Amino acid sequence: MVIPEIKKPLVTAEDYVQSLRDMKTKIWAFGECHEDVPDNPLFIPHVNAVAKTYEMPFPVKSHLTGKTINRFNHIHQGTDDLVAKVKMLRALNNKTACCIQRCAGMDAMNATYIVTYEIDKAKGTNYHERFKKYVEYIQDYNLVVLGAMTDPKGERNKQPNQQADPDLFLHVVEEREDGIVVRGAKAHFTGVSGAHSMLVFPTQNLKEDCADYAVVFSCPVNTPGITYIFGRQTNDNRKQDPEHPIDQGNFKYATVGGECLAVFNDVFIPWEDVYLYKDYEYAGMFVEAFASAHRQNYGACKGGIADVLVGAVYALCLANGVAKAGHIKDKIADMINLTETLYAGSIACSYEGKPTESGAWRADTMLANITKHNTTKFVYEINRIAQDLCGGILATLPSEADFKHPEIGPMLNKYFACNPDVMCTEDKERLLRLVECLTGGTASVEAMHGAGSPQSQKVMMMRDANLMKKAKLAGDVVDCAFVDRL
Amino acid sequence: MVIPEIKKPLVTAEDYVQSLRDMKTKIWAFGECHEDVPDNPLFIPHVNAVAKTYEMPFPVKSHLTGKTINRFNHIHQGTDDLVAKVKMLRALNNKTACCIQRCAGMDAMNATYIVTYEIDKAKGTNYHERFKKYVEYIQDYNLVVLGAMTDPKGERNKQPNQQADPDLFLHVVEEREDGIVVRGAKAHFTGVSGAHSMLVFPTQNLKEDCADYAVVFSCPVNTPGITYIFGRQTNDNRKQDPEHPIDQGNFKYATVGGECLAVFNDVFIPWEDVYLYKDYEYAGMFVEAFASAHRQNYGACKGGIADVLVGAVYALCLANGVAKAGHIKDKIADMINLTETLYAGSIACSYEGKPTESGAWRADTMLANITKHNTTKFVYEINRIAQDLCGGILATLPSEADFKHPEIGPMLNKYFACNPDVMCTEDKERLLRLVECLTGGTASVEAMHGAGSPQSQKVMMMRDANLMKKAKLAGDVVDCAFVDRL
Amino acid sequence: MVIPEIKKPLVTAEDYVQSLRDMKTKIWAFGECHEDVPDNPLFIPHVNAVAKTYEMPFPVKSHLTGKTINRFNHIHQGTDDLVAKVKMLRALNNKTACCIQRCAGMDAMNATYIVTYEIDKAKGTNYHERFKKYVEYIQDYNLVVLGAMTDPKGERNKQPNQQADPDLFLHVVEEREDGIVVRGAKAHFTGVSGAHSMLVFPTQNLKEDCADYAVVFSCPVNTPGITYIFGRQTNDNRKQDPEHPIDQGNFKYATVGGECLAVFNDVFIPWEDVYLYKDYEYAGMFVEAFASAHRQNYGACKGGIADVLVGAVYALCLANGVAKAGHIKDKIADMINLTETLYAGSIACSYEGKPTESGAWRADTMLANITKHNTTKFVYEINRIAQDLCGGILATLPSEADFKHPEIGPMLNKYFACNPDVMCTEDKERLLRLVECLTGGTASVEAMHGAGSPQSQKVMMMRDANLMKKAKLAGDVVDCAFVDRL
Amino acid sequence: MVIPEIKKPLVTAEDYVQSLRDMKTKIWAFGECHEDVPDNPLFIPHVNAVAKTYEMPFPVKSHLTGKTINRFNHIHQGTDDLVAKVKMLRALNNKTACCIQRCAGMDAMNATYIVTYEIDKAKGTNYHERFKKYVEYIQDYNLVVLGAMTDPKGERNKQPNQQADPDLFLHVVEEREDGIVVRGAKAHFTGVSGAHSMLVFPTQNLKEDCADYAVVFSCPVNTPGITYIFGRQTNDNRKQDPEHPIDQGNFKYATVGGECLAVFNDVFIPWEDVYLYKDYEYAGMFVEAFASAHRQNYGACKGGIADVLVGAVYALCLANGVAKAGHIKDKIADMINLTETLYAGSIACSYEGKPTESGAWRADTMLANITKHNTTKFVYEINRIAQDLCGGILATLPSEADFKHPEIGPMLNKYFACNPDVMCTEDKERLLRLVECLTGGTASVEAMHGAGSPQSQKVMMMRDANLMKKAKLAGDVVDCAFVDRL
Repeated sequence: MVIPEIKKPLVTAEDYVQSLRDMKTKIWAFGECHEDVPDNPLFIPHVNAVAKTYEMPFPVKSHLTGKTINRFNHIHQGTDDLVAKVKMLRALNNKTACCIQRCAGMDAMNATYIVTYEIDKAKGTNYHERFKKYVEYIQDYNLVVLGAMTDPKGERNKQPNQQADPDLFLHVVEEREDGIVVRGAKAHFTGVSGAHSMLVFPTQNLKEDCADYAVVFSCPVNTPGITYIFGRQTNDNRKQDPEHPIDQGNFKYATVGGECLAVFNDVFIPWEDVYLYKDYEYAGMFVEAFASAHRQNYGACKGGIADVLVGAVYALCLANGVAKAGHIKDKIADMINLTETLYAGSIACSYEGKPTESGAWRADTMLANITKHNTTKFVYEINRIAQDLCGGILATLPSEADFKHPEIGPMLNKYFACNPDVMCTEDKERLLRLVECLTGGTASVEAMHGAGSPQSQKVMMMRDANLMKKAKLAGDVVDCAFVDRL
Repeated sequence: MVIPEIKKPLVTAEDYVQSLRDMKTKIWAFGECHEDVPDNPLFIPHVNAVAKTYEMPFPVKSHLTGKTINRFNHIHQGTDDLVAKVKMLRALNNKTACCIQRCAGMDAMNATYIVTYEIDKAKGTNYHERFKKYVEYIQDYNLVVLGAMTDPKGERNKQPNQQADPDLFLHVVEEREDGIVVRGAKAHFTGVSGAHSMLVFPTQNLKEDCADYAVVFSCPVNTPGITYIFGRQTNDNRKQDPEHPIDQGNFKYATVGGECLAVFNDVFIPWEDVYLYKDYEYAGMFVEAFASAHRQNYGACKGGIADVLVGAVYALCLANGVAKAGHIKDKIADMINLTETLYAGSIACSYEGKPTESGAWRADTMLANITKHNTTKFVYEINRIAQDLCGGILATLPSEADFKHPEIGPMLNKYFACNPDVMCTEDKERLLRLVECLTGGTASVEAMHGAGSPQSQKVMMMRDANLMKKAKLAGDVVDCAFVDRL
Repeated sequence: MVIPEIKKPLVTAEDYVQSLRDMKTKIWAFGECHEDVPDNPLFIPHVNAVAKTYEMPFPVKSHLTGKTINRFNHIHQGTDDLVAKVKMLRALNNKTACCIQRCAGMDAMNATYIVTYEIDKAKGTNYHERFKKYVEYIQDYNLVVLGAMTDPKGERNKQPNQQADPDLFLHVVEEREDGIVVRGAKAHFTGVSGAHSMLVFPTQNLKEDCADYAVVFSCPVNTPGITYIFGRQTNDNRKQDPEHPIDQGNFKYATVGGECLAVFNDVFIPWEDVYLYKDYEYAGMFVEAFASAHRQNYGACKGGIADVLVGAVYALCLANGVAKAGHIKDKIADMINLTETLYAGSIACSYEGKPTESGAWRADTMLANITKHNTTKFVYEINRIAQDLCGGILATLPSEADFKHPEIGPMLNKYFACNPDVMCTEDKERLLRLVECLTGGTASVEAMHGAGSPQSQKVMMMRDANLMKKAKLAGDVVDCAFVDRL
Repeated sequence: MVIPEIKKPLVTAEDYVQSLRDMKTKIWAFGECHEDVPDNPLFIPHVNAVAKTYEMPFPVKSHLTGKTINRFNHIHQGTDDLVAKVKMLRALNNKTACCIQRCAGMDAMNATYIVTYEIDKAKGTNYHERFKKYVEYIQDYNLVVLGAMTDPKGERNKQPNQQADPDLFLHVVEEREDGIVVRGAKAHFTGVSGAHSMLVFPTQNLKEDCADYAVVFSCPVNTPGITYIFGRQTNDNRKQDPEHPIDQGNFKYATVGGECLAVFNDVFIPWEDVYLYKDYEYAGMFVEAFASAHRQNYGACKGGIADVLVGAVYALCLANGVAKAGHIKDKIADMINLTETLYAGSIACSYEGKPTESGAWRADTMLANITKHNTTKFVYEINRIAQDLCGGILATLPSEADFKHPEIGPMLNKYFACNPDVMCTEDKERLLRLVECLTGGTASVEAMHGAGSPQSQKVMMMRDANLMKKAKLAGDVVDCAFVDRL
């Protein structure tokens, strides 16, 4: 479990960035293999977002060691922790307007902590003790963990062992005395450019004939045999032109976390890093514990980004002289209503959290699911209103290079001028590019599919809704006892 | 402040109903004056809903007297109280599927408690001590208080003293040594058929030239000089046919609280019951404190009703054999998502409540406003889906008298039969009438305009949103400092 | 086919009402059998709405006889006819704000005309000639036809012959030399109180083992053996108090068509009135032809009602002095946008109509289905906005009897006064009751389920969407030929 | 008016592209001035979309010359022309999935034709005859015209002559014997990369003191003194890597029209090309005529793109094995419903078009406005559903360079494989990139702000809604005559 390149606990953002340099994790992008991740313009903004968690740390006392640790590595010990978690996310997103990338690892750690306790209690295994050692190590060295769950899945209507290629779900291909060998891939996960360790989960419930697919483990991200391929993002080429940062929009912190595919080509994992193996009946429990913990966040992190978006749009309306028009105020109020409704979900599911037998607390499942589900609609509507309020220039603004050009720059500055008491043309350019960046394609898709696609939340809602109990309430109100007979 | 007809603290629902008989409050409806309110079919269902708060009491310790009191008369002492309040509302609405009518009084008491403290501190008045005595009396005798705030208002674009008739806002017309005389009216308030005392508020901010309109007071509901005229509700005539309760839908508990107009025809109020007079600069603070407290509730009480509605609809789908169809499940999941989002608002604003200088706690204003605002849309969508899932029979079901008729009843029972393992035709009839009742006109309007019309929430959201702070967040992300210059 | 009570062609509204008196059709309601339909307060408003089609007739030349007939009895001969039909509906609904009740018969006649031609051509039957005689008779005498299609259906997941009771779908129980005997029921159909003849359809596709259920026929509405039971409507009791018309809202024309259940207790139908029997493979074609024709209308008739609603709401905003506020104008514009979008659907599907082999024209199926589907959402949103704009008084306005009462009437008139230059209190009362009536329960349900529930439109959309053709378009754009291989 | 570089009428797409080469119009982008527009990868896809109108021409007979011309240069002579116009747009967008760029010029020509006739009639000017010559020339040579209307506008709450810089609206700075000199800019207009001539309009109503801003004229796009600066589009850099077309998504036809800013630096326009000068009272009429004509289109062109999007998404669902799941079908049906509702608007406003005194026909204003307004919401919802149905891979798919790389390409093809009977991995890649491209930022913004921002449509709706007439309808229904008194 020890990562050799990490020599000492990481304290500052500089420590953190240096640790990434030391680990030399390789990531493929645009057909090239990049070995200089923390110093490469393609990845710097993503690294910066994670670095913010070192610059602006939220400390908490570890229940394992009593030491002060970064809250992103904490196992939640009560509703206060659950609430502090989501408030931390909104606060950080207010500063970065970008996925902070460190929450999936936090959520995966909490889920593993909870479920390994359940398995050990039921089956006499010792996964939980193993995992506690991992958590202590991560906490002590203040490392960044990523959670990887989603398999490529091939045809959705087939089980893992029914696929044309058995590797379309990650599985164990060899069991050795000292550990296991895994093959397959994990897709769509966030944060490889800034992580030290990864925690790998199955993606769904599994039956006995898929027991080889029931595996949970951790490994350093630079483990040999793993190949990372970065996904394309909206306007990602603009990052390759660091001379013109304005056009990137959120040039300091990127737009989204930076998702990738990890291919595990017969990777060896020692036993000490394995937290589930063949106990297939617990696969679904990992998924659900992780999903609920992760869905808890979305109203806070997307709400935090929406705050920035509202601010940018409001500023542009001020600059255009329209901030007091009735229909403008009404639309801004709609953005606020949507934003705060998202946030209310994160807050509510956190306060309504429950303890598990392991001692760790988890958010209320129903409310966490509705929180995430709302982001799959409200974020789109927030973005739509923002695009309305910015005007057509959002899609027609010339490039920064044009604005900076000696011949045409002055023309652009002349004609795109707004109320100079509010802002200069370059400020307007910066804000418009920020809105473009926050409301563009990839960011929306992340709100849609991050932490599970919309239908997965509906499935959980229906399971937890207790419809028969509700039917009984209705029967009682009108004095009919049909439910008792069912 | 003492109500002579109340001889002893009310404990049981029977005590409560007897107390209403004793008070003999008169209410006009359908052109007649009714003096037998708690025994009159027009009002019985409304009284039953309030009586539920005696049958199924939520006890709490009074911070004033240390005695155990009904939570509806409590001054909230922390977020636990705020949360317990909204959970009580959902639980009671699960049982009654009807406005419980006792929350506006609770909210008005809390608001008066908070604001009188502020006035006294600032101006050396003694409103707060007066009011504490009132609260103690209400708590000790376990009485029901109603809150009345909305004036008729005439033309909305004119101030109280600019109206053609100065009485279109309630105001003081005479100041005496022993008290004041008020004239005017309060409209749209809930619960006169079941209340003992009323707490009267101004309806908006007031300027100095409207100081006579700045008045807050309490009085027994049977105070001479007040005339109550009940509003018409959807299908209210059905209550006048107690032989056929099924057609009423929610025949035990009515559909809505039962709103009325109260005309104050030169009503005398002794000084001991006056909690604001001429301190016009505090009128708006009463309004806002009450509005926020009341808006806090709507996700819980409307959510509680929606639970019953989901249950009724689900049961009908089971009876029709369609509960497992994909589009049916999807629509039920949408109802649940909307219901729980409403509820999340109530929960979040409660947990995020803040203490006031008086020691009383109040819900978070922003989140309370978004909670209420969401009900103005989500309740309609929940109802729409319910009407979709019930099928056209919701609008074409014959009357109970037809179902009971010896000649045609058998025909109806034959042709409206559904899966007999799920329910009999009469159960289906009862549930359809319940859905009709819960989704009909008045109930929706209550979700729209109760606790203030939608625009009033938007005004508060915009005031509390701190748009300049959000603009600064945006500026910081893209390195432009325009806000600092504004 | 001849109705003995009809002695001469009906020209005026008076002729029409007298013809209903002559036919003495009996309708059950509230447990009583009513034989005086056109003179009974329960039914008068419904009759008035149909009578409007005589008072304000839209003439057209019959393609069968060359005579001038009422357009409601016309077989459409081109897109001009289809467009004229929907414009007639909007115009009439502008005058009545109520379902005009005569379109389902028109649509059923057109559908039967089209499908009987197809059957005869394919199978050598002579349904079409029979039916043309019926149409000529209806045209000549200017009679009102109703269309009845929906069976009670019992459990939705079972076929007609699998139901516990075989009568849950209407079917032939005896074949005689001179005709057939039918048993079963038709539910939810509109207009029995004002019709002369009914045209009865099957409700779905049928397979061979359900051939007895494949039956289409016409009969006079007063045919012995048919029992009609009227459905309850929102606030229907108010019609029983003709002294207080204002409280009815739309007191002249009712709220909705007036739906009922018709029980056919072994009713004899002579062969000359039978237009389908046992040719089960055409049952679905009747359903679809009727459904498309009927769905064509909804944007026009509901749009016509929405016009009145917009007008009422706008007038109330003027009276309250708020018509120029930004958020008010914005909401009225939203109502207009929704209304005109509904109407655009009716207009578009009419102009895009196609000829059938029979020579009759039918609306475009896809566009007719989207038109109807939109009403299942937009009407609700229009109503929601209307309820927003009226304010809480919509749910709390006292009864007309109170307003007329010598003691409390003056109080109500004093306190509910608005800008007297715009309207008096009674006008406000009338308009608020109209809005209550138009936005209440039954009217919405009619927009939802009339002409088929929302899911039935989605089924047709998916069938007509030609998804493979669309997939090929996508493939062509990006140069991939996968569709050709499928 | 003659463009010297155009030697003969353009017939084929090749003729057309050559004509652009000949004209050598210069466009700035990315800080460089490009003189090879039709052969530059930045612009080729935009040119291709226009070239499609030559490859797949829709011929019509000119009412001026009787010759067969391209419908894009036609003056509409009846509703048949208006309908043919929108059907042409849907058909072309089905092939290109991209803004076809030639409609704004068509709409500007029709508007100018209509309004110049009105001015001449009222004021004895001869604008109309001048303009007819222009139209004949354009028709004869089959040229592409662009319409440019929107000024930069500076502060929206100030009139042109109140702005800090008078040039923020385009105006005449010098009147000469042979023509006028104009200064200012036009923003956000479409199609400069493929146009021959531009037709320039004012942007709003003008008062007398802004008469210098009342100017309408045409000029060749390569007129000296005009500087074009291309706006940035989502993922525009990908066009600069022609080796990897797949990542562009719609690599043949671009995503949107390609908008730009045109700066007029004292440009001379001869009198023969001036169609309005100083007749300020007609400025608004140009705007409205153009806006209505242009808004007519949006349901057809965006509907045409939506068809392709539905096809792409459906194909991907087939490939993933989920096309038959209930919730998937339901969402696709929602996409279809939205698409066809958009289209119904274009169809309806076309059929309901009206003649003008000039003989040209124009679409119904109200219905054209609701059509465009609906695109500002429905296109977003269509895109949202598409992003839902594609899954998270839409945001995480690696680059084409990665897929083509010898080392990691095989991994990607292995792990992103789907049902091989439906499509290969590369087809999936192509379709996902297409969806990314169609649902990304710029395309949405175009649907929002093209042909005017949403509020501008609401303003027109409110003006045309005739609210007083609607109020009278309501008054008539409930027998109150308030409107007659107003």
